[in-house]
Amino acid sequence: MTASADSKTSGRILISVDAMGGDLGPATVVAGISVSAKKNDRIGFILHGPEDVLKPLVAKRKHLAGRCEIRNAGDVVQMEDKPSQALRQGKDTSMWSALESVRNGEASVCVSCGNTGALMLMSVIRLRKLPGIYRPAIAVLWPSQNPQRHNIMLDGGADIRADAKDLMQYALMGTSYARNGFGLERPRVGLLNVGTEEHKGRAELREAYDLIEGNARNGDFEFVGFVEGRDLPGTVCDVIVTDGFTGNVALKTGEGTAKLIRDLLKEAFAHTPLSRLASILALTSLRRMGKRIDPSRANGGVFLGLNGTVVKSHGSADATGISAAVKLAFELADTGFTEKLAARVASATMLEQDAANEPDSNGEQA
Amino acid sequence: MTASADSKTSGRILISVDAMGGDLGPATVVAGISVSAKKNDRIGFILHGPEDVLKPLVAKRKHLAGRCEIRNAGDVVQMEDKPSQALRQGKDTSMWSALESVRNGEASVCVSCGNTGALMLMSVIRLRKLPGIYRPAIAVLWPSQNPQRHNIMLDGGADIRADAKDLMQYALMGTSYARNGFGLERPRVGLLNVGTEEHKGRAELREAYDLIEGNARNGDFEFVGFVEGRDLPGTVCDVIVTDGFTGNVALKTGEGTAKLIRDLLKEAFAHTPLSRLASILALTSLRRMGKRIDPSRANGGVFLGLNGTVVKSHGSADATGISAAVKLAFELADTGFTEKLAARVASATMLEQDAANEPDSNGEQA
Repeated sequence: MTASADSKTSGRILISVDAMGGDLGPATVVAGISVSAKKNDRIGFILHGPEDVLKPLVAKRKHLAGRCEIRNAGDVVQMEDKPSQALRQGKDTSMWSALESVRNGEASVCVSCGNTGALMLMSVIRLRKLPGIYRPAIAVLWPSQNPQRHNIMLDGGADIRADAKDLMQYALMGTSYARNGFGLERPRVGLLNVGTEEHKGRAELREAYDLIEGNARNGDFEFVGFVEGRDLPGTVCDVIVTDGFTGNVALKTGEGTAKLIRDLLKEAFAHTPLSRLASILALTSLRRMGKRIDPSRANGGVFLGLNGTVVKSHGSADATGISAAVKLAFELADTGFTEKLAARVASATMLEQDAANEPDSNGEQA
Repeated sequence: MTASADSKTSGRILISVDAMGGDLGPATVVAGISVSAKKNDRIGFILHGPEDVLKPLVAKRKHLAGRCEIRNAGDVVQMEDKPSQALRQGKDTSMWSALESVRNGEASVCVSCGNTGALMLMSVIRLRKLPGIYRPAIAVLWPSQNPQRHNIMLDGGADIRADAKDLMQYALMGTSYARNGFGLERPRVGLLNVGTEEHKGRAELREAYDLIEGNARNGDFEFVGFVEGRDLPGTVCDVIVTDGFTGNVALKTGEGTAKLIRDLLKEAFAHTPLSRLASILALTSLRRMGKRIDPSRANGGVFLGLNGTVVKSHGSADATGISAAVKLAFELADTGFTEKLAARVASATMLEQDAANEPDSNGEQA
């Protein structure tokens, strides 16, 4: 009996996992999914990569027994491959194979820690965009003091452009994600800009503002209006919408700032014998905080707007990071996220077509 | 004898200071300039604001005796004023008066902690752009591990747009600032983008890349090419060039991230009696680190590209922050920064005109 059939009979939800392409290699990926398997009895895996490499790794993990089917794929997309190149040579790669399991309906979510650009392009080509979606987006997580501990920002870098309509769709997609991934009933959405005063910002953002506001009721979210960079890790909203260029710069600025502070903190604590003693006493506190801002715990950029959901884990993810990405993938699959998102987008598209088909109105029509 | 004449005979460099508009009021500004006066015998001040308010404040500071001339200006630009509104009603404000001292040549640098948008607009209208400059820029400082402890980013938000030529001028202006403000002989310049791979980024950035590269020799800087958000607080370059929209989002993202970490650190240390004890022992270390990333120490966005230099201090700057801004203003004035910058820009503009006047070349000309 295959793991797949076994999982179906046991009611397990299957996650398709690309075992290759992460900086730490397949052993780390297998260790990560084993952690998830131990914690959650309802997960099963389809694991993609060279069978001769994966089989002994899986055999060593008792929690994976009967819950992890291996699909042989001999090639690996390298981190330095250009997306177009990876696509041309990609049919025998673990990444391609992992997406194939979502494409053919065996799994609804795929997890990979490989090359982001290649994964995005391959996802768009193989899974295709949802009807009505112009630009798919990468939704990333920011540590925050909100009760759910993370805010969602999109686009984190799938596409360097986004017009007003794309930004509106990002708001809908981000809201669906917040609802299904974090259990927020009515997420608060903000549109990233340089200032909250009305005289600031780009013209297309004003247009996006109106579009997002107009879809708030139908999309079942609260629109808080323009927000600033400081609100990405803030508490005024749960979902922040921006184009992929700005989003990617912001994301990496946040990472760089966190790294600088970590380095300076280390230096500060190494400065005198007393401060070294203090650092030993403070270790638990520092670790506790470290957990909150560790990107490997908030692991997983999620590709939205496709026929299927792809969770992109950090290239440098360790077993904990992989396990966090699998957990997110499971929650999205379990809540029927892909289908719900498709329905939301379809409903917004219909609204828009209705509006376009209506005769010019001065508000006199019912 | 006026302070101005006194300063001239004593060889002092005059800084024009807007005493009003900061969140903490004129007493804090006077305290700040007094700190600077005590530290540096070569600084004199022209202080702008309501005479009846400023006179007693200045009289209390012995280091300001004979070194601080007061210029009466009854009105204050408020933080919530729109720039256009501030400009219309602004002739009697301390901000207008402070810029006037630069306009008429009494001082070459002005310091204000008032409303940024109003200060920028008023500066452009009153001081006028340098010949050849299309868009002035705000240069801001990022804490970094570079030897000078800060990187320079521009534009921090003067203008939400910037084309390739503007970005090239930002590179020249940022380089002049790094040389005169931080003593870097041959600053390293990076162009902010979403990735270092050649297939990424906007088309106009590719054009800017070529323009900046072409001016590196004449501008006496090293061009390191595209950099990412994480390099803003990093060590690969000293000057980072970007448009004002992206720059402002990045700046506020950095501030927001630093604030989140500070808050989480406080929480982590308050968690148990042991961690509270550790935090007491660690206090000096934490303070030492806090100083490194405290925006009030890296105080002063600098407006570049005008006939005169304007240092914009944080609205919430305390006396230490004001004093840091004055120190920067003094260094820029002392090195003849405004004049040197103008010469650099003029030289780049001439190069460009020469190139435009040359016949089409296949590299055959000498």
